Amino acid sequence: MPSHNLKQGPVTLYAQLANILRDRIHTGVWRQDDPVPTLDELTEEFSLARVTVRQAIQLLVQEGLLSSHRGKRTYVTWKAPEMSDQPIFSSIGSIDDTPETYTVDRLEYDEFDQLPPRLLEEGLDAGPYVRIRKRDLYKGIPYACSETYVRLALYRQFPPGGETVSKITRLVRDATRPRQITGSELIRVSMPTEDESQQLQCLQTAPVARISRVLLDADKTVALFGNYTYREREFCLTRDITGLLRE
Amino acid sequence: MPSHNLKQGPVTLYAQLANILRDRIHTGVWRQDDPVPTLDELTEEFSLARVTVRQAIQLLVQEGLLSSHRGKRTYVTWKAPEMSDQPIFSSIGSIDDTPETYTVDRLEYDEFDQLPPRLLEEGLDAGPYVRIRKRDLYKGIPYACSETYVRLALYRQFPPGGETVSKITRLVRDATRPRQITGSELIRVSMPTEDESQQLQCLQTAPVARISRVLLDADKTVALFGNYTYREREFCLTRDITGLLRE
Repeated sequence: MPSHNLKQGPVTLYAQLANILRDRIHTGVWRQDDPVPTLDELTEEFSLARVTVRQAIQLLVQEGLLSSHRGKRTYVTWKAPEMSDQPIFSSIGSIDDTPETYTVDRLEYDEFDQLPPRLLEEGLDAGPYVRIRKRDLYKGIPYACSETYVRLALYRQFPPGGETVSKITRLVRDATRPRQITGSELIRVSMPTEDESQQLQCLQTAPVARISRVLLDADKTVALFGNYTYREREFCLTRDITGLLRE
Repeated sequence: MPSHNLKQGPVTLYAQLANILRDRIHTGVWRQDDPVPTLDELTEEFSLARVTVRQAIQLLVQEGLLSSHRGKRTYVTWKAPEMSDQPIFSSIGSIDDTPETYTVDRLEYDEFDQLPPRLLEEGLDAGPYVRIRKRDLYKGIPYACSETYVRLALYRQFPPGGETVSKITRLVRDATRPRQITGSELIRVSMPTEDESQQLQCLQTAPVARISRVLLDADKTVALFGNYTYREREFCLTRDITGLLRE
């Protein structure tokens, strides 16, 4: 076990300790329904003040990783995500099958003559575009917020109010069909801005995944450009690398 | 522009501000060689003390995102990653072509009768395994640290010292050839532990990507299981989603 030598810095001591304990949960060292060590044990292990350890535990309780009931032991409540080719992060996997557990809120619309500067620079700008800012929820809990630019000519082909119940990527795909649409994504890790941490109801100490997505029409014009921010716990991408191994 | 209303919390004010500014750089709002706003302008925009803004800028200078020379303006030095199917994060893309810019250090070896608890639960445990802990460097700068379990019978087929110059995934693949090897990865975002932030020379405020990788032999036994932690800036995955769109 590495020796921990926590120091004051940009992140408070209790948040640093929470990071270490969160990691034990996410990597399966502490598993669902396991009791976690007592305050005394953690105080001793990390050579920290009892109040600091208590704050770290409270942070993980707030995040829904640990249970806490006065006078009872603390248990791990977080369950490792199921292996799946269609993790919650991907609105692609489920675009043909928008379940009732999926809802959208806080839609905002703006119109732009051109696309903003973007990391994913593929394709030709073909404005005007509608920008839709929104929040996606699963069973009422926000898991992603996004801004999506849709070419106005395509947006006008959406069924009325379609974007309030369906994934925008799906609507764009359907509006361009049967033309040859292509798409790519760029995935990075980052920290939430204050606005995002409020929208996602996550803490600013919890990282996020950022996905940029571009869909190109047959003529290489940008049909959709979107920036999506996913909560740490809701982001989990699995991929088959067999092809890469056999190249 | 969203209004920023930064509050004291688990993350210090200057680190919160650094998160917002880092995001402007990563999303291309501020681009390489652009001058950033002056301290006075940022102080006004965020309604923060001048010392707080200065600390945030210093943090980004330490991270190599901004330049800073006394008496001169501050410029963006970070360059957006090139679009590529083989980002630095993937030791797969380059396993057949280990360039001279790739080095390994701090190797530690241990032997285990069985695999540890793991998120990626595919395959059959077939111990004993050698666990290799190491750090990967690109042009002398650490970009990932990892622990990799290799089935002992396969490890013994490595060329002597192979893992000090080559990717372990490559050596395992070559040791199992021409059998049918399959592989999968699970990718998550997280915060570095104190040990990882030291190894990667990154700050504990900067998030990391965590990759779990499993390679299975033809008989479904686990040939390799590895946990890899990548620095925020060195992780960038691109993927083609055209197939998903046309399903």
